[in-house]
Amino acid sequence: MTARALDALVEALRRLPGVGARSAQRMALQLLQHDRAGAAQLALALQQALAAVRHCTRCHTFSEDEVCAACLDATRDDSQLCVVETPADQAAVERTGSYRGRYYVLMGRLSPLDGVGPDALQARSLIERALDGRVQEVILATSFTAEGEATAHTLAEVLRARGLRVTRLARGVPAGSELEYVDLGTIAHAMHDRR
Amino acid sequence: MTARALDALVEALRRLPGVGARSAQRMALQLLQHDRAGAAQLALALQQALAAVRHCTRCHTFSEDEVCAACLDATRDDSQLCVVETPADQAAVERTGSYRGRYYVLMGRLSPLDGVGPDALQARSLIERALDGRVQEVILATSFTAEGEATAHTLAEVLRARGLRVTRLARGVPAGSELEYVDLGTIAHAMHDRR
Repeated sequence: MTARALDALVEALRRLPGVGARSAQRMALQLLQHDRAGAAQLALALQQALAAVRHCTRCHTFSEDEVCAACLDATRDDSQLCVVETPADQAAVERTGSYRGRYYVLMGRLSPLDGVGPDALQARSLIERALDGRVQEVILATSFTAEGEATAHTLAEVLRARGLRVTRLARGVPAGSELEYVDLGTIAHAMHDRR
Repeated sequence: MTARALDALVEALRRLPGVGARSAQRMALQLLQHDRAGAAQLALALQQALAAVRHCTRCHTFSEDEVCAACLDATRDDSQLCVVETPADQAAVERTGSYRGRYYVLMGRLSPLDGVGPDALQARSLIERALDGRVQEVILATSFTAEGEATAHTLAEVLRARGLRVTRLARGVPAGSELEYVDLGTIAHAMHDRR
């Protein structure tokens, strides 16, 4: 491509996660040729999000206010604190309708290989939050991947050392599954945690 | 997610080709949490591209000037005009080093189902360009897909009716292929066009 502004756009699009050189070129072509309104909208949305979005000082999720709506909601149970990795995970737990306590959003997970240690994870801020005197149970709802499990393990140790009750989401067979098609590790966990 | 600016950003990212709801959320999280510089850079690149990038008045490719560098290059052969679908296709032909003529970039291909007819394809502007008195051969280098073939067929008819010599890139067995693994349609074409 000959235009320098176009090359710069392709380069900027490549920084998006999951976007390679070809996708970035395709996106730039699509935006400039067929969807200039979409390109302008994206530029504006980026600037407004950069200006407006910060972290809730209580639960660390994205928020436009100092304290987010979930933390301000007086009907929620202050004695439970559910720790999730991302706002999307928080939304998933919320949609189940099975939890009415508070949240803490890590905005990531332990990943020593990527340089994400307990400091980058805001673990200290989580401990402060959990020791507010009202929280009685911390529910670790990080992913059931290697990194999510390591995160849960590390946080559990630190939180238990401060005398808090720490639980983890149950592992087991997903609803709607036929046992034949469930992986063996999951069945073994479900057998161990049977009730 | 609770922040409105964040929702707007996810919505804007979803307009990118190949980006669904989950990818858009992941991109927004990545940009706001780990790469705010990248987000600012993308916003700026979008605005600069929108302001600076227009179409070359001769070959219709993206350009920041009225006429692009390839059209201004006095060392190129004015008697040949290679018609491609996108700037990326033009770059691919250019990298081969096997062509020193001029280009015309359609910025798309015929796709009646998507509402892209000959008008949207700038076919009229291509004909004007091809009838500049110097062009002696128009080389159709659109894709060898159904839509690319239909585009080549339609353009060939129109251009031949104006008395121009029209050729098409050769179909055949790709370099480096073992015949056993080449699809039968390609082998049949290669047999027919043997030389």
